[in-house]
Amino acid sequence: MKQILPPASIGFVGTGVMGKSMVRHLIKAGYIVYVYNRTKEKTATLIEEGAHWCDSPKEIAKKVDVVMTMVGYPHDVEEVYFGAEGILTHAKRGTITIDFTTSTPTLAKRIYEEGKSKGIHVLDAPVSGGDIGAKEGRLAIMIGGDEEVYEACLPLFELLGKNIMLQGNAGSGQHTKMCNQIAIASNMLGVCEALAYAKKAGLHPEKVLQSISTGAAGSWSLSNLAPRMLQGDFEPGFYVKHFIKDMKIALAEAEQLGLSAPGLALARELYEQLMQDGEENSGTQALYKRYIKE
Amino acid sequence: MKQILPPASIGFVGTGVMGKSMVRHLIKAGYIVYVYNRTKEKTATLIEEGAHWCDSPKEIAKKVDVVMTMVGYPHDVEEVYFGAEGILTHAKRGTITIDFTTSTPTLAKRIYEEGKSKGIHVLDAPVSGGDIGAKEGRLAIMIGGDEEVYEACLPLFELLGKNIMLQGNAGSGQHTKMCNQIAIASNMLGVCEALAYAKKAGLHPEKVLQSISTGAAGSWSLSNLAPRMLQGDFEPGFYVKHFIKDMKIALAEAEQLGLSAPGLALARELYEQLMQDGEENSGTQALYKRYIKE
Repeated sequence: MKQILPPASIGFVGTGVMGKSMVRHLIKAGYIVYVYNRTKEKTATLIEEGAHWCDSPKEIAKKVDVVMTMVGYPHDVEEVYFGAEGILTHAKRGTITIDFTTSTPTLAKRIYEEGKSKGIHVLDAPVSGGDIGAKEGRLAIMIGGDEEVYEACLPLFELLGKNIMLQGNAGSGQHTKMCNQIAIASNMLGVCEALAYAKKAGLHPEKVLQSISTGAAGSWSLSNLAPRMLQGDFEPGFYVKHFIKDMKIALAEAEQLGLSAPGLALARELYEQLMQDGEENSGTQALYKRYIKE
Repeated sequence: MKQILPPASIGFVGTGVMGKSMVRHLIKAGYIVYVYNRTKEKTATLIEEGAHWCDSPKEIAKKVDVVMTMVGYPHDVEEVYFGAEGILTHAKRGTITIDFTTSTPTLAKRIYEEGKSKGIHVLDAPVSGGDIGAKEGRLAIMIGGDEEVYEACLPLFELLGKNIMLQGNAGSGQHTKMCNQIAIASNMLGVCEALAYAKKAGLHPEKVLQSISTGAAGSWSLSNLAPRMLQGDFEPGFYVKHFIKDMKIALAEAEQLGLSAPGLALARELYEQLMQDGEENSGTQALYKRYIKE
């Protein structure tokens, strides 16, 4: 299978916070990019920057050889791939699809099998690194699927990320992403509780961060999200509602695997409370609000 | 107050995993170091390397101008400072004491006040970075006390750590260390649950670590402790029993401050279970065992 190099045409379904930055990298590299998004207005700046609008995933699938997707929930993924206007319903043989959405391993395997029966090559490729990672082309990309398809797509992945790994067969990308979200979930509690303690103990939280960020308590969230918490910046790099979706998937999968994950279960519970407080469209760092409102 | 430079004499009480590495850095820099440890045998290699044995904290306090302590529990700190053979009972005016033990903010303030009444300068200076940090002289040191004392001791701190910060008045070092332990506590659950999930999902956990360590799930524990978990290496960099002690202090302080810390409370519960399984002298990464034994 040949590597996919510019000026190849690429389709991209889902131009939200993450998708938008990813499309930009493709355009800059010289690819011809066709975009579709449920809310058309969100593609406006991309169209100005050179992307081409399509009216449906179907229209995209008919135009290009590589279709990327980055949508919200597993049911969106299902619609975009299996719907009447969906990709698998309309793509030609030999098409490659890459789903960057964090979705269920089971659905990833279903897309792969359905694709295979139609001669379509399918990768699941969820990412990590948040809005900053997407902007800077420094995402971690966790891939499940066939090795030759992965290798054909490497030049594309390399535009979007720095840590690109084929984790195994179909669904392995999603499973790996679940590991990622599980690690983040409990850590968010630790970060929020540490900051709330600092504040209540009368310390200077910014100074505390300087002390604890470089040692054994150090983490991406502590370095990147804790400063936002302290500045009262709760803008979404990663939405609370999407994180809850991921934690639900992870908990369901963990249960199927016979694994009890009490940290994850607690994190989900606290984030559900936060959502009930009306914070579903805030960034995940808004969990801090729950601790300081007490 | 003059900076403390070699060949000044320094006393060091408590030569465990961390203390031993710290003493080595002082010897190498040309300081004359007097050591005391409850279990004398643990000082044997240090004596070979040039340290001098003393029979009690009292004897140390009578010999030197700077006494450092790195013991186990708050009641050990109390004994070492306030006991009949203790430092504050026998030190001369002008002595500086530095407690590296992670202990209670309240006790740190008590030592400071008692020291002040006797013309003894007291710093609380708990550290973070584990056995590796101590070995490599790359600890984070969080200091509470008077600025001029802190500045006099800077050349000493700089031999032991890379991230050295005066956090505020007496007790602030300990409060900052509590923030550190709180951040670690919940994160340990996330790290263990992520690895256990990877294993049960049939992924290659080492490969998963490569994917998730550099993104938003990244943390010191994920980079440094998760590989040990996978190798079955549960040797203590930091003891389970000491971590439980720290979490107890943090929970008690949080309660006093009116802060609920459910992540911390859960972590303590799981570590207590681990201790009941006989793992009190393992490293904190042994929490992983609890997840895979199920």
